[in-house]
Amino acid sequence: MSVLVVGSVALDSVETPFGKADEVVGGSAVYFASSASHFAPVQLVGVVGNDYPVHKLDALRARGVDLAGLEQAEGESFRWRGRYRHDLNAAETLETRLGVFSHFRPKIPAGLRKAPFVFLGNIDPRLQLEVLRQVERPKLVACDTMNFWIESRRADLVELLKHVDVLLLNDGEARQLTEHANLVKAARWILQRGPKHVIIKKGEHGAFMFSGNTVFFAPAYPLEDVFDPTGAGDSFAGGFMGYLARSGRLDEAHFRRAVVHGCTMGSFVVERFSNQRLLEIGSGDIRTRLDEFRRLVAFEEELPA
Amino acid sequence: MSVLVVGSVALDSVETPFGKADEVVGGSAVYFASSASHFAPVQLVGVVGNDYPVHKLDALRARGVDLAGLEQAEGESFRWRGRYRHDLNAAETLETRLGVFSHFRPKIPAGLRKAPFVFLGNIDPRLQLEVLRQVERPKLVACDTMNFWIESRRADLVELLKHVDVLLLNDGEARQLTEHANLVKAARWILQRGPKHVIIKKGEHGAFMFSGNTVFFAPAYPLEDVFDPTGAGDSFAGGFMGYLARSGRLDEAHFRRAVVHGCTMGSFVVERFSNQRLLEIGSGDIRTRLDEFRRLVAFEEELPA
Repeated sequence: MSVLVVGSVALDSVETPFGKADEVVGGSAVYFASSASHFAPVQLVGVVGNDYPVHKLDALRARGVDLAGLEQAEGESFRWRGRYRHDLNAAETLETRLGVFSHFRPKIPAGLRKAPFVFLGNIDPRLQLEVLRQVERPKLVACDTMNFWIESRRADLVELLKHVDVLLLNDGEARQLTEHANLVKAARWILQRGPKHVIIKKGEHGAFMFSGNTVFFAPAYPLEDVFDPTGAGDSFAGGFMGYLARSGRLDEAHFRRAVVHGCTMGSFVVERFSNQRLLEIGSGDIRTRLDEFRRLVAFEEELPA
Repeated sequence: MSVLVVGSVALDSVETPFGKADEVVGGSAVYFASSASHFAPVQLVGVVGNDYPVHKLDALRARGVDLAGLEQAEGESFRWRGRYRHDLNAAETLETRLGVFSHFRPKIPAGLRKAPFVFLGNIDPRLQLEVLRQVERPKLVACDTMNFWIESRRADLVELLKHVDVLLLNDGEARQLTEHANLVKAARWILQRGPKHVIIKKGEHGAFMFSGNTVFFAPAYPLEDVFDPTGAGDSFAGGFMGYLARSGRLDEAHFRRAVVHGCTMGSFVVERFSNQRLLEIGSGDIRTRLDEFRRLVAFEEELPA
């Protein structure tokens, strides 16, 4: 089954303690698609300006990502410039230029409206709601958000929650949205407002999934060299949704494995700048790291070899 | 098999966002013993002043903790006063009065020198080394430390590492000791200096155990109400050592389960002030929480009911 993603397609300039990258391919939809396309067909809806080096997306097309829904509009592309210091958990935004993204109104092409899996990348909740008005009975809708929308579009975001199955956000955002410092309480607040699952991402400290009365935790893979954390959250979402779309099953066990697939894809993307690592790896690499995850947390049964 | 613990026996005064406790029973050896005694016989070596309300340790004695090695010396008992703000991960020390603890020279009674399991609580590494000179061929030695000793007694601490099997410390301490920001690198640095296992505790973010070429991770249990984090690390150590002493087996699988027992005991102690919660719970409570842990991280096999 296929996954429709609506989100940003950007040019990122990133500085980390280990190097610099200028105007590389970025944006939530790009990271998501690079990750999810390892598991399922992906259709991308977004916008770039007429200055965008669209040939740089050929690698995505080569991975089977359908870019028919990517508009090219008059104006500048969305650009983000950021820096990570030694604490790789926190990006410092140096500059954001929305460009054509500031007038973006997502139009879902007729052929994509029946997409069974829909991921609403981190954009204005009003636009996320517009997407949901255009799609037809998706099997599963997940969305991401960020501090900026929690502050400026709280009412729309709370309205959106009624219409999504899964909310993904980080721990700081969960605390900000719910005004609960405790994550168990924050998760309950969110679950009471619509989503059946909430995934609270804690960067290098892993991720919780709360669902009804159950809670699941998966650690981040302990990497020796984290090169650039940009895109880890969207790559997580891509692994999560991609796995569910491939399996087609939405029970608790599959959701848990989907979280582990999310952690796995997040652990790859941070090993290089941009989406490079996600374009290099194959199913063998993914299987190997999934096995490493299994060994990382195994304690009860006989340890896997 | 029994566990010998050498460490502090203190009077703590603690403020948290949820309340205050004055001059309650505390100290690394007390927390450790309260926890480990759920699994194995414990012998405690430490010192208190002649002002210590020793009857407050009756509850430990009732749990089978052997206090024959607890000296009572002329002078004031060790007192710690601290505060936690909303970020319950970090204690703010308001006052430390070492009292009789500043002249403490641990003397291991002849009858305890053959203890098969030895835990060196967080005291001066020179004293930890003195303890090791007195014990006879223990099966397993674990030790804890803290920022103060890493700064002031680095050479002694590095010497100590040659003689311990397991080092337990928190992530900040691991970074400070090894001068590696990355925990995988920090762990390798430590493993190269003697210990066969290093456990890096991350508070509410769980704990890693690195052993040779393997790594294990266990989350902290997601509690809705953390009341007072004091003693969580020592209670972890108590669950860890207590479980190993009870099982008597020192293979990787048992070490992993020991870490989960550590997390379990750490998750109880923070539910009330002092060691109260550890004195209330029984084996049924522990089993229930161990099952909750299993469900918290299970994703591959069929989920336990």
